[in-house]
Formats: sequence, structure tokens, C-alpha cells
Amino acid sequence: MAEHKESTRKAALRALREQETAQLERLKEFIRIPSISTAPEHRADVEAAAGWLARRLQALGAADARLIPTGGAPVVVGHLPAASPAAPTVLVYGHYDVQPVDPLAEWRSDPFIPELRGESLFARGASDMKGQIMAVLNALEALSAAGDPPVGFRFLFEGEEEIGSSHLAAFIEKHRDLLAADICLNPDAGMLGPDQPAITYALRGLAYFELKLHGPDHDLHSGAYGGAIHNPAQALCELIARMHDHRGRVMLPGFYDRVRELSPGEREDLARLPDSEILKTAGVKALWGEPGYSALERIGGRPTLEVNGLLSGFTGEGSKTVLPAVAMAKISMRLVADQRPEEVRGQLERFIAGNLPDTVSWELEQISLGPPVLCATDSPAVRALSGALESVWGRRPVFRRSGGSVPVGAYLQQYAGLESVLTGFALPDDNMHGPNEKLHLPTWRKGSEALIHFCCDFGAPTGGN
Amino acid sequence: MAEHKESTRKAALRALREQETAQLERLKEFIRIPSISTAPEHRADVEAAAGWLARRLQALGAADARLIPTGGAPVVVGHLPAASPAAPTVLVYGHYDVQPVDPLAEWRSDPFIPELRGESLFARGASDMKGQIMAVLNALEALSAAGDPPVGFRFLFEGEEEIGSSHLAAFIEKHRDLLAADICLNPDAGMLGPDQPAITYALRGLAYFELKLHGPDHDLHSGAYGGAIHNPAQALCELIARMHDHRGRVMLPGFYDRVRELSPGEREDLARLPDSEILKTAGVKALWGEPGYSALERIGGRPTLEVNGLLSGFTGEGSKTVLPAVAMAKISMRLVADQRPEEVRGQLERFIAGNLPDTVSWELEQISLGPPVLCATDSPAVRALSGALESVWGRRPVFRRSGGSVPVGAYLQQYAGLESVLTGFALPDDNMHGPNEKLHLPTWRKGSEALIHFCCDFGAPTGGN
Repeated sequence: MAEHKESTRKAALRALREQETAQLERLKEFIRIPSISTAPEHRADVEAAAGWLARRLQALGAADARLIPTGGAPVVVGHLPAASPAAPTVLVYGHYDVQPVDPLAEWRSDPFIPELRGESLFARGASDMKGQIMAVLNALEALSAAGDPPVGFRFLFEGEEEIGSSHLAAFIEKHRDLLAADICLNPDAGMLGPDQPAITYALRGLAYFELKLHGPDHDLHSGAYGGAIHNPAQALCELIARMHDHRGRVMLPGFYDRVRELSPGEREDLARLPDSEILKTAGVKALWGEPGYSALERIGGRPTLEVNGLLSGFTGEGSKTVLPAVAMAKISMRLVADQRPEEVRGQLERFIAGNLPDTVSWELEQISLGPPVLCATDSPAVRALSGALESVWGRRPVFRRSGGSVPVGAYLQQYAGLESVLTGFALPDDNMHGPNEKLHLPTWRKGSEALIHFCCDFGAPTGGN
Repeated sequence: MAEHKESTRKAALRALREQETAQLERLKEFIRIPSISTAPEHRADVEAAAGWLARRLQALGAADARLIPTGGAPVVVGHLPAASPAAPTVLVYGHYDVQPVDPLAEWRSDPFIPELRGESLFARGASDMKGQIMAVLNALEALSAAGDPPVGFRFLFEGEEEIGSSHLAAFIEKHRDLLAADICLNPDAGMLGPDQPAITYALRGLAYFELKLHGPDHDLHSGAYGGAIHNPAQALCELIARMHDHRGRVMLPGFYDRVRELSPGEREDLARLPDSEILKTAGVKALWGEPGYSALERIGGRPTLEVNGLLSGFTGEGSKTVLPAVAMAKISMRLVADQRPEEVRGQLERFIAGNLPDTVSWELEQISLGPPVLCATDSPAVRALSGALESVWGRRPVFRRSGGSVPVGAYLQQYAGLESVLTGFALPDDNMHGPNEKLHLPTWRKGSEALIHFCCDFGAPTGGN
């Protein structure tokens, strides 16, 4: 077994290198489909991306690969069994949808015409996460070229991750048989830098809302009425200002009640990483946030409340002396274990109701609501992945908490009893949700190498059976 | 003299009625020019409106009517002398520019295709203030038709009132000879209702700014960074929230220092008018504002600080988990005697500098800066106008303070030593700066009648010489 494994590994790594040009072209083809899930006008593109993926899975040998409709974007599933019935099965998760591209003017090249500049490929979705999906499929193709892959694969590719995965929980609950596996490999969690691989064992939940305050029933002249009417833009600012104390702690009553504190060991691990990297990649003069925690602790282990958007009144060039009728804010909260999204929504609603004067009325629309995830750190899959990353990068991966939100982890745990291992080859400066998103190609290729190692080691552990 | 005056008055009133159809068509023609001064793409339309007015003045006999260029929109001037050298001269002020039309979707008809619905003409500029200019020119045409007008006229029509009249002060200072008159008649001040004419003796100044806060140097992923970076949208809300105390008093240090208190007589006058009208026309559940003053006192006699616009981050449909790089607010202050706009700008700058943490940087762009106006209430012109309004409406005009801003009044006082009388025939529900602006035509026609009376009485006062 060990010998067979070693020859497979070598052949696969060789095949991976031989297929490099084709891999890049295929990635570009996938990226060119503008599958922006938040934009209704891109619905057909979202479907097209799903179709493209299903065809790709079929080409890789997953004959049953198909699109399953949901209330929203379709889910792509497929099964590529291993030759040996004893081989474990890895469920590969990914999302084929991408973020919107605004502000478009800030892109140096068309977001959907991938452009190679230096060692990176610039395009929307290059890093988040079409590149990550293709890193797995490239490894899989190389393993197939080398003979029988040491593990079987199932696939779960959704098209609504960037808009809250609202149909995914129901899908997983209903189709758990299609997802039967030993572990879910989720490559949506990224690295700390090109030389530092990472395994992510915690992700934050996301509760995203649109809040509208209504004042007068139409826009008023700010001269004719100003001073006598509570301006809803002002009321919105006054409300939002109360949502944090002056040092950055969230003021919703009960918000921190269920928050699981970081363990001393976790805090020790996090203390090894410098906050200075955040300062640099964010391009800010100073860091900020809840006192008593480092920036990395705040991002990985503490919940937040963030204003993602503001809109009211006149925002064009010059002046319009309007006292606006409506003011809108997009507000989202990142949640950590053991916060419950529904409970937090209630806390927000009660806070708004309790802090708004009766001069304005309000409505709150829920846009997404996903729970936090906390994974095992000592399973066979995690050990195999850790070893695989170390083989390629020459250093042990950092075990870390991520500030992002990938609701699928919680859903798989809850509805399919399936643990996830989270990793990925995105870099902190990939501009994942901003203009000029990029994928660092050398890191991307190393990622596929590491995945080949992972499959070989997880499929036939050393010292095993 | 008195007999001559009476026959002129009667003939003019008759001529006014005979010209009704032509007057309405002419108003529509003027309105159809979309002279939006704040929009660079409408620059040619602004010029076209100026040209239209100059041609109209020439047709009325002001042979020297012409456009004088400024750094912005041209000023239209002209002179129509009275036959008698002893007759006083009235400088007619107006602005031919109009407000923008957004939100366009809320208009029931095209803003620049005037539509008659019921007794009102709906269009942008119908009430503010193309209709008001035409009310004066219609009276003047009728007086000319009736023989020698009892007063001479000069004209001062600007095209930048809606964007702060930034070139007007310099123009008035430079061309004071073209404006030599006994009084300025400014019909931009409106009525209290269709049955209640008004003379406005105070107008608020306007200091309008665009404030931008900069946080990270690009939009960030709110998951990857949220908790460690001060969100500029949040910082903006926190700053704006501090600009008022919890009861609505403006918190800029020194803001109220120069504010001239309302006299007991003024407060008595204002107390006769019900606040309930404001509640109704604004369409709010409750009034709001600085304690210790009625709503009308707050609008007419107290300064304000208003948020006219907010923009940050993602404002489209759905979700984008962005931590925005920039947050913008349009902020304006309405000023009362004896506040000084430049001083108030300094107060705002110091407030921002003193209240923003060093996690964000800021820039403040000045958009307009106009002083408040306080006029005489007992001059011959005011007495003549008061009598004229009473003749038509059967009730004495209310002397009031307006919350709006017409910087020209202060400039004429300061640079040409000229007092203004402010009136007009706009109604509170005309939606002057909002969608579906309208002009109430019966009130408009009564306005021209009143102006005929005013010219006759001011030109040859009863009991005079």
C-alpha cells in the first residue's frame, strides 16, 4: 500500500506540472462567467457557471454530476468513487458565485476578463473562490491521471455563498445521502501569507440586515422644514452611534452573553502572529476595536457589528437642500461560537425599537443569517492536511480562527453530521471583495500539490491499517 | 395723480385677465428649459433659460436686457425706466435655475413637460421660481398695456441660486450701477396658504458642506477585517450623532453665541400660526427640535444643522460584506442673524477635528456659504406691498421669518445698500425641492394682481406728494 501510494503521489505531482497551461486556461474560462449572485440581471450567468462546473466534473469522471434546483441558484453535486471500497470519501465544497464588482471605476482591468500581471491573475472570483475550486479539481485530475485516486470524492458546489447561502441548509438536510462522506474539504479559508499555510478551525457567523428609517412621507426642503422635523438621516446616525460604546464594544443587550472565550492556548497561538500585517494590508493609520483583545483575536474570536452601507437624501455632486424622507443602512454582525443568529436578530430588533424616538418609523429586512462554525483540530483529516501543507511549504500550518463566514460548515455539522477541514490558498492581499481581486498563481499551484499529498495521506495513512 | 393711478390700475387689472392664456403658455415655455444648475450636463440649458429671459425682457421694452457672464451661470440684467423721472425704481430679483429632479421615479409626470392637473401646473421650477418671475413679468406687461407704468424696473436674474449663488456677491459689488433702485422686490419667499399672503422679513443663511471620512485605503472584506478596523461609515455616524444633543440642540461650540433672540412681539406673532400645518404638509408623526421654541420659531428664528445626504459602501440590493473605505455626508447649516457663515465653517471644522479619532482622516468641501437676512418691516415699499396683498386677499399679510435661504438679500444690503421686500406666491405644499413640484394657478394670478396694486401704490402713494 505504501509503495503504491508513493508512486501515485509522484505520478500525480508530475501530471499536475504537465497540465499547468491547460489548468490556467480552464480557470480563465470559468472566471469569464460573471456569476454575481446578488445581481438579478446575472441570474443566467450564475446558472451558466453551475453548468460549466457540472460539465467539468463529468469530464473528470463524475458521470452523475448534475444541477439540483433550489429556491435560488442550483447546487452542483457529483460523485467520483474510489476504486477501493475501503478508501475514504472527501466531500469537496465550493461556491461558484462571486461578489459584485462595484466600484467598477477602481478596477485596473475588466473584472471578468482575467488579466495576468506579474505572478497574479486579476479578476473577480479569481481568489474567491473559482481559483480555489480549480485548485482541488486540478489535484483530482492529476491524481486520476496517475491511476486510481486514493480517496473517493463527492462534490457540493453552491451559487449563493456571497448572498448568505439561504437555500443551503434546506438542501443539505434534504440531500444528505448525496453528501455522504468522511470529511468535508472546504478550500474557502485562505492562508496567512504566501509562505504560511493555514488550517482554519473557526469561522464567524453572519447576520446581515437592511435597516430603513422613515421620517417625513416625502423629501422636504431643508429650509422650509429644517429645525422642526427629525431628519431620518440624522436619526439613523444617532441610532448607529449607540450601537458601539466609545471603545468599540457592541452595545446590543445580551450580545456577548453566549460568546465562548478564547482559551489561553488559542490566545498564545494568536499572539505569535503580528497585528502589523493587518495594518499594512488594510491600509489604515491605526487599528481599532474592542479593548482587551489583539486585532487578530478580535477578527477571529470576537463578534462585531459593522455598517456595510449608508444611503440617504442627495448624494450627487454639489448641493440639494433636501431633508430626506428615508435613510438606509446595511448592517451586519459577525458571530462567534456559541452565539445564535436568531437570538442576535432579536437583540438588534429590540435595540432599534428601544433606541429610536417616535419621530421616525423603521423596517428591518433580513438578508442573511448564518451560524458560526468551530471545528475539530485533531481528526485524521486535519492531521493529513497539516502534514500535506508542511510537505509543500516546509513549515507547519498555523491553526487559526477566521473572521469570515462560511455557513456551510455549520449546516454540514448540523444536518449531515459531517465535520469540515478548512484551508485554501487565497492570500490576505487578494482583494477578495474589493476591486482588483487577484490570485497568486505560484501559491495556487502549490495548493494543488498540497491537495495531492492530502489525498494520498488521508487515503492511506502512514502507519495505518 | 390719484386719478391717473386709478385708471392705470383698472386698465392693468383688465389687461392681466385678457392675457391669461398667453401668460400660461409663456410660463410653460420657460419651464420646459431644464435649467438644473447643479448638473454640469445641463449647463447649456441654464444658458438657454438666461437667454429666454433676456429676450422676454426685451419684448417687454427693456431694450438693454442682456446676459453678463460670471465665473458660473450668466446674470440677466435689464432696465425699463418709468416715463416720469420722479417715479421710484424697483429692482426685480429672480433665479432662473431649478433644483435637480431626483428621485425621478416619484414624479407623476415628466418634470420638464408641465402638466395641468386640477388647478395646478406640475413641473420642476413651476413654483421655485419660474412661476414667481413670470408673476412679476405678467404684472409688468399688464401695466405697460395700461399706459406708462407708475414705477421703473430693473432686473437681476441669476442662475445659481439653487447651488449657493456663489458668483452673486462679486457680481453685485461690481455692477452696483446696473442695480440702482429704491427697493428690491424678491418674490422667492412664498405664502402661508392659498388664503394667507405673507411678507417675509427674515431669511436664514446657508452653509453647505460635503464631508468625507477615509478609513482603509480600499474597501475591505468585513469578515477578514471587521473588529480590527474603524469603519468610516460607523465613524461618520458617531461624529454626526455628536452634532446634536438628545433634544436637538446643535453642539458645535459657539454655534449659538451670535444668534439674535426673537423679540417678544415676534414670538407673539408666530404663536398665532399653528404648528399643525407643518405636521400635515411634512407628513410626519411628530414634530421635533430645539426645546424652548415652537416649530415655527425653530424654522424661522433658530439655526439648524441638517444631514442632506449619506453615502457609503454597498447600497444596492442584497448583501455585500464590505467594510467601506470612504463615507460621505452632505451637511448644511441654516443660519440666523447675527451668525457669520465663515465663523460657523470654522466651528464645524474644529468640531470635526476635535471629535474624530485618528483612525480615520477627513476632508471638508465647502459647497455654499451665504449669510442670513433681516429686513426692515416699516418702509414705504413694505407698506405698499402689505396694502396690495390685503386688497387682493382681503386679509393682512402675515409678517414672517422664513426658514429658507436667499443670499441675494444680504448681498444687496451689503454691496449695493439696497433693502429688499420679500414676498411670493408659492404655497407650502408646492413640493419645491421634491418630486411633483407644482404651481397653484389661481394663487399665481392673484399674485400678479397684487403686484399691479403694489406698483401703483408704491409709484404714487396715497396721501403722498
